[in-house]
Parts: sequence; C-alpha cells; structure tokens
Amino acid sequence: MNIPFKNLDEAASFQKLQAIPRAAVNELLSVQRIEACQVPMASGMRYQYAAMPVADKHLEALQELADEMHCVDSYQELLSGAVMNTGESRMVLHHLTRGQLGADVTADGVNKREFYIRELQRIHEFSKKVHSGALCGSTGRPFDTVVQIGIGGSDLGPRALSIALKGFASSQGRKPAMRAKFISNVDPDDAAEVLETVNPETVLFIIVTKSGTTQETLANRELVRSWMERCSVPGLKPDEHMVAVTSETSPLAKSSAFLTSFYMDDYIGGRYSATSAVGGLILSLAFGAELFLDVLAGAHESDRLALNCDITKNPSLLDALIGVYLRNVLNCPATAVLPYSQALSRFPAHLQQLDMESSGKRVNRSGQPVPYPTGPVVFGEPGTNGQHSFYQLLHQGTDMVPLQFIGFTSSQRSFDISSGGSTSQEKLLANLAAQITAFTRGQDHEDPSKQFPGGRPSSLIAGDQLTPRALGVLLAHFENKIMFQGFLWNINSFDQEGVQLGKKLTEQLLAPHSGADESLHAFFTFLKQ
Amino acid sequence: MNIPFKNLDEAASFQKLQAIPRAAVNELLSVQRIEACQVPMASGMRYQYAAMPVADKHLEALQELADEMHCVDSYQELLSGAVMNTGESRMVLHHLTRGQLGADVTADGVNKREFYIRELQRIHEFSKKVHSGALCGSTGRPFDTVVQIGIGGSDLGPRALSIALKGFASSQGRKPAMRAKFISNVDPDDAAEVLETVNPETVLFIIVTKSGTTQETLANRELVRSWMERCSVPGLKPDEHMVAVTSETSPLAKSSAFLTSFYMDDYIGGRYSATSAVGGLILSLAFGAELFLDVLAGAHESDRLALNCDITKNPSLLDALIGVYLRNVLNCPATAVLPYSQALSRFPAHLQQLDMESSGKRVNRSGQPVPYPTGPVVFGEPGTNGQHSFYQLLHQGTDMVPLQFIGFTSSQRSFDISSGGSTSQEKLLANLAAQITAFTRGQDHEDPSKQFPGGRPSSLIAGDQLTPRALGVLLAHFENKIMFQGFLWNINSFDQEGVQLGKKLTEQLLAPHSGADESLHAFFTFLKQ
Repeated sequence: MNIPFKNLDEAASFQKLQAIPRAAVNELLSVQRIEACQVPMASGMRYQYAAMPVADKHLEALQELADEMHCVDSYQELLSGAVMNTGESRMVLHHLTRGQLGADVTADGVNKREFYIRELQRIHEFSKKVHSGALCGSTGRPFDTVVQIGIGGSDLGPRALSIALKGFASSQGRKPAMRAKFISNVDPDDAAEVLETVNPETVLFIIVTKSGTTQETLANRELVRSWMERCSVPGLKPDEHMVAVTSETSPLAKSSAFLTSFYMDDYIGGRYSATSAVGGLILSLAFGAELFLDVLAGAHESDRLALNCDITKNPSLLDALIGVYLRNVLNCPATAVLPYSQALSRFPAHLQQLDMESSGKRVNRSGQPVPYPTGPVVFGEPGTNGQHSFYQLLHQGTDMVPLQFIGFTSSQRSFDISSGGSTSQEKLLANLAAQITAFTRGQDHEDPSKQFPGGRPSSLIAGDQLTPRALGVLLAHFENKIMFQGFLWNINSFDQEGVQLGKKLTEQLLAPHSGADESLHAFFTFLKQ
Repeated sequence: MNIPFKNLDEAASFQKLQAIPRAAVNELLSVQRIEACQVPMASGMRYQYAAMPVADKHLEALQELADEMHCVDSYQELLSGAVMNTGESRMVLHHLTRGQLGADVTADGVNKREFYIRELQRIHEFSKKVHSGALCGSTGRPFDTVVQIGIGGSDLGPRALSIALKGFASSQGRKPAMRAKFISNVDPDDAAEVLETVNPETVLFIIVTKSGTTQETLANRELVRSWMERCSVPGLKPDEHMVAVTSETSPLAKSSAFLTSFYMDDYIGGRYSATSAVGGLILSLAFGAELFLDVLAGAHESDRLALNCDITKNPSLLDALIGVYLRNVLNCPATAVLPYSQALSRFPAHLQQLDMESSGKRVNRSGQPVPYPTGPVVFGEPGTNGQHSFYQLLHQGTDMVPLQFIGFTSSQRSFDISSGGSTSQEKLLANLAAQITAFTRGQDHEDPSKQFPGGRPSSLIAGDQLTPRALGVLLAHFENKIMFQGFLWNINSFDQEGVQLGKKLTEQLLAPHSGADESLHAFFTFLKQ
C-alpha cells in the first residue's frame, strides 16, 4: 500500500481549517441554504447539513482535508484487499458481502466475493426449506420462531435491523415469515425471558460467534440446550433446532451438533457483519431472502457513492468530515443520533457500537498515542420520545452536543388517522422540523430559564420510507462515515483490543486455581456476599 | 425559606477541593479500600466507591461542600413543602408518594400525603376489581393486558420499572397478573406494532398526561379509539377500556370518556412520577398492588437515608458529590450507567431522562448563567452486552468517561445452569468484577494497541437480588442524587423549559394559517417531499 498515513494535526489543510473563523449556525441558516446544502444519498435519500456550522470556506478546507488524508484512495485500497486492519494484519472485507467495487480479493485461496455469494445462496436455500416446511423441527412441526444467540456485533446490528424491518414486513397485507428474537446477555434472566415466549418444538436457534469461543454465547447455547432437555418433549432433539454462524476455522464449524453452519471470516469485524450471514440468516428467515437482498442492494449503492472524491457528492465522507470538525475544532465530546422513526428504536444502540468500538482508540496506526481526541460518545433514542427526555440538556445544557436526525416522509404501515387537523405522521415530521429549527435558532426571552441559546448544530438524513433498501443505505452510510473518520484520525477502526483485558480477568476469576489480583477477588467477593 | 443559595464556584470548600492534588485511582485501589469504601444503602444494598479517585482529603472537602451548600437542609425544606421548583413557583412533592419525612404539606386545601394515600388506595381497589373479574371489558371478557399511553416521564420510568419487575413477578411459581405494554411515540408505527399484539376485548388502556394536553398522547388515544372502532366487535365500547391518570385540573379529569381517573398534581414532575399513579397503576395492574407497595417501601427507606448529614452514611449525597467532583474538577462531560442485570435494560433510558432533564440547565436559580458545567450526558446499556460494544471507547478512547456499575448476587429467576465450571450468574458477576478492575488497573503491553491506560473511575451499587424493594431503593437513590446535584450546582432540577420551544414551533407548523419562520417551513417541506 502506497498511501502515506499521517496524523490529522500534521495535515496542512487541518491547520487551515482550524484558522477559519467559526460560523454561527444561527446566522447561516436560510431557506436558500436548506435547498443548497443537500447531498443525494443512495436510493433517493438525502443528507442535509444546512444546520451545521459549515460555510463555503469550511467546505473548501474539508475537501482539501479529504484529499490530503487520502480518504477515498484509502477506501479504494480497502476495497481491493489491502491489510487495513493493521494491528491484526487482516483485510477488511465487509463491503464484499454486498457487491464488488474493487479488484478481486483472494484470501485463503478463495475469491472472497464468490465466498460471500455462496453463503448468501446457502442462506437463501435454507430459508426456502424452512419456509416451505421441507425442513421442520425434530418432532415434525414447522419452525415458526428464530432466536439468534450472539452478543455485540452478532446481536446489536441484526437486532436493530430486525426491529427496523418488522413493520415493513407487516404492512400491505404482508406478514413476517417467522418471529425473530434475540438472546445476548450472559445474565440467565435474558434467556429465561425469551424462552418463556417460544415453543421448543417450533423454535430454531442461530448460534453466532465468529471465533466459536465467545463465553456469553456458548453459555447461552448450553442454557438453551438444557432448557430443551428439561421440556421433556418426546422425540425433541436440541441439536436439530440449532444452526451456527461462525468462521470456517472455529471449533463450532462443521460440528454435528448443528443442523448446518454458515460462514463468515476474520476479514469482517463483528460490528460490520450485519450484511454477512450474521445478519443475513435471521433476516432471511424472518422476512424472506428477497427482503434481505434489498438491504444489500441499498448498502451496495451507498458503498458506491462513497467512492466519489467530491465531498458534496459523497454523503458519508462529508458527514465524516463535519464530524471531525465538530470533534477536533469545536471540541464536542458527544453526538446524539435521533431517528424520528419508532422502527429505528435500536438503531442508535447499533451505531453506538459501530462508532464507539471503531473510533474509541488512543493510538494511531503506528502505535503512537494521538495528540487529539478521536471517537465521541454516541447515544440516542427515537424522537418524539427523546424530546420529552434528554432534549432538555441538548437545548439548555452547558455543553454543545451535535445532533444527527433521521426522518421519513411516510410511516411503514398504513395505520394512521387525522386528529386535530393532522395525521400522526404529519405531527411526527412537524416535530422533527421544529426541533432542528429550535436547536438552530434558539429563543430570546425575558425569563432566563425560557431562553434557548440556539446555535446547536444538527444534520438530517431524510428518505421517503424506511424500506429494506433505505435501511441498507443508512447502515452503509454510517459504516462508511466511521471508516472515513478512521482515515482522518489515522487510527485502526477495525480492531477492538479494548475488549480483551476484561475477558482475561474474567477467565482468571473463574479458573479453578486462580492466582488473580487481590482487588479483583475482593470485588468478586463483594458482589457475591 | 432561609437557605442562602450560592453558585458552586463561590463555595470556599469547592475552591479547597479544586486545590487538593488529584489522586490516581490506580494507586489508591487496594483490598483494604474495597472493604472501607462502602456505604450501606437501604434494604441491604451497598454503594462502593473504592474505584473512584477520592482519597480521605477529598472526602473531607466533599463533606464540607455538602455542608456549605446546605444539601441536607435544602432536602428537608423540600420535604416540608418549600417552593423548590422556583421558576414554576411549585413545591416538589414526589417523596410524599412513598411516605412522610417532613412536616405535613398542604396545597390547594388538601393534605398532600393523604391525597397520595387516597390515590394509592383507589389504585389498589381498582386493581382488585380488574384482577377478580368484577370489572371486565365492555363485551364481558376479563382484562388480560394493560397498555400505558404516555410519553417522557409518563413512559420511561413506568416502562423501566415494568421491565425490571417482570422477571421477579414470573419467578418461583408466580405469574404476572396482566401483560404490560406501552405506546409513547407519535410515530403511528409505534401504536400499530403494539396493537397487533392485543385483543380489543381484553385490553385496558391507561392514558397518562398530567396536563391533559400532551400532543403525542392525545394523538395516540385517538388512534387507539379509532382502531377499536374499526375492529367491529359487536358491543365493544372504547371508552370502557380506558382510564386516565392526570391532574384534577386537566381537561381529561372526571371525563365520562374514561372508566375512571386517577390523579397526580403539578407538584410532581413527570420524570419523578414513577412512584405516583403514573407508575403505580400499571405496576399494580400488571404485578399486583403488594408488589408496588414494596417498591414504595424501598424508595421511602432510600429517602430517609438521604437525610443523613454524614456523607459516608448518605449514599445519594456521596454519589452526587463524587459526580460533581468528576464533572467540575476532573471535567468529565459524560457518565455511563452499566447495570449487570438484563431486567434493568431500560433503566439507563429512565436515568438518562431523570438526569439530563433535571440537570441540563445553564442558568441558576436566580436566572444567571452558571460559569461551570452542569449535568453530563448520561447513557448506558446492560453488561455484559455493553462490553462487546462501546466499552472499547471507555477502555481505550481519548476521553475519560466515569462509570456507574450496578449488580446483584442472584438473578431474578431460578433459571441457570453450570457450564465450564461456573453458572451464568457467576460468569456475569465475574465479568463485572473484571471490568471494574480492568478500568482501574489498566494494562501495560509492548504492543501499544494492547495497552490500557487504566485510572478510569467507577462506582458500584450492589444488592442481593433485584426485588421490588431493591428497585425502589435504586430509583430513589438516583432521584435523590440528582436532587443533591441540583443543590450543588444551584440550579432548578424540577422544571423543563427546554421542551417548550419545540412544542411551540410544532404548533405553528400544524396551525391552519401558519405564519411560522420560513426555515421552519423549508425543513418541513424537505421532509415531506
């Protein structure tokens, strides 16, 4: 790879950006700006940054920064199989799960695009067999519920997407093919709660762990097997209600304890795995393989757009650059994600993982501590709910928190009425427009407690409806945004060494003859007393 | 009221606190400290601050700060009906919903403690009638599901508590009396999703809005009525499936469109209303009135403990003081709440509201801008899930985020097995102990990406089991912590003026002949296109 990586603060364009006087978003905002500051996203969606403190001269410097930091070049390298996960010496191939944009990539002697296509076809065929009843549970009853057992990337993305698609799959006379549920936490109350709602004869479990060694997931698999045995249903065979999603080299691969296994690999990080078998199997089973293909098509279209070197035609890159401006020039330590769509209720939790696990790094790609802040805290809940909760601090708190709004013209289901002169969906959109304006404009008032300072920046992603395709666009937009920010911060966005120490100490505590740190034991004892 | 309020930075003890050298939590931590730095909470729970950067000299200064800022005096005034919600000229009476600790409080000619007891008794009687079948749906079938329609404080607290208690109410041969569900968002997909799972003949709706004018809640009430009508069940009368929780002066009070109404008042803010009828009715219906009384008993015990002037015997006050130290001396802009209990999965969302809506203020009680940061961003998800997600940033990000852990010795249900030498519950607690230790100690490593800086502060609340009583303790602990922080920051923790501007602009947009701001219209048009 020939790209000369350097730290953000070493870029001449970043120094230039810092020197540009800050813009007051309140003064910038105008109708003309709202029309001008839109970037088309894939599938007719739109990225709107009129309420961001970015004037023409900032945009120019951000374009220079993108060029100087080789953002699109780096992305192209990544697409063509460069070892971008440097610490772990791995390629980064999640884009290949939804299409080919770079050169063919071969790893372990396999064309990886063909590998992902093959797994996708196997998912398609498996789903058809389950839906048709050709494959039934061990007592001969058709499967009606699929429960994914996984944690982190094997849970949050697939769960967020599953919740997001349920309403779409339930609209216009459609019905989901199966119920989708998730068990993630090692807390046994999590599994207990889910198992109360399923029938052991008609449930299919997907055990998802890339390494095949994830403690929580293996413990929950045992818990579920034990529950099935205790159900005492004549002829019930737990292994015939379980499939695995894992890597080909894991201890779970090709095990006879599963109906079958689907494969991913070490070139896809958990948090980037929603478009692989990790998300694809459960979504295809619950909603049909065609619907999952639409998610992939949207994501691929988004990936393609991210190749554009012009930042006003590359929404992921522009979003990334504005985020870096907010973080490293305006010093904002947190960002809120605020979808005005109940179907996206768990999308912020997925983004929280995607962003904080990718960008929560303190050393650069050469192992040197970076002298500037990297990933912010990311949090959020759906509007309008958040408006009656933490928006108070966003409007009138002492810190400035940038906002990422998401909204859709239509709801997913045709379930709405007019009350007081407007439909619920119109009320939802009016609230969203009102909030963006309120955060930007603020309000003067003689009573200081009723003053709103305004000048609080936000962006808005808008679409016609939260379809599977739009969801794919949204998912890939944020994945690519975070990837670009990694290039700008000169960090490795694809490892997660920060999860290892806790695992190691947990193993020490649970080992039979543990020589662990005394304080560690003291905390454990404190909890067990 | 004779308490001389002043700003935090005017306190001599705060200046003293700032001058004390900072302690390295890594160096402080020891087995002795883990034993010493515990404060008993109500009902046998324990607050542990061994992993907080607070040495003896900090504790001394914090005690002086609590005294100088009249924290406990202010609380006593509040309990006895002082007008602590100054901007709105209102008393703050949520503590009275669970017991009397100060002088009798009379408002609107009524003894308020007696008022809340009367409403509690009415809830008790109503629940008995529903559970016994003495009160049935309009077609004569018993109610089996209760759906609360409310938003913000009428949703997040009751929902978090309902999720928290479900496992307890399902354990040891018990079963919840009714299913509990919630509709909050004005997005019509929210109601659609819930209504798919309920039977119009056996569902009881609780419409919760103190003012009786909350747009989202009224819209959802109409949506639900319209749905019931469209169900075309002979004899079904929507009004006989609805009760209200509102103030006695609201347009909904004593309306014939409800089976009955339960009352709260303007002296209880939404986010502090979980122990009033707002939380009490749905919890009593779902799990039985006795179980809700246990929540109240735990909360009351916590309230009593908060009267202690000695900060080492007052966990809410100590937690508040340490939070202010982290925010105003160590400059931490965010706090994570990390319950190692799946039952507390939505407790962080409730705390996010409680904290950010109470403390997200930029002017003090006299209307002057405060010259220091107030409430932090609060976010969280249950462990172990968060470990595989945003903990990466907490361990290895560039910013320090203080952590509030919560854990229990036993799970709620007796559903567990041993696998690999330990039960799931033991694994859960081992993970928790390991994380506290990892955050504190960090790790040196030759590979910089595997280094953990450590020194990241955390506190731990531990209990035997998440019982209704323990949940009440936890709820009131945080309510009182946030109240004390309001006294320390000299802000009004009990108003929420920050929600008003958005409401006003929404109304302008939806009005028939709107003269609203052009940009506001432009955003609305952008969303509707």
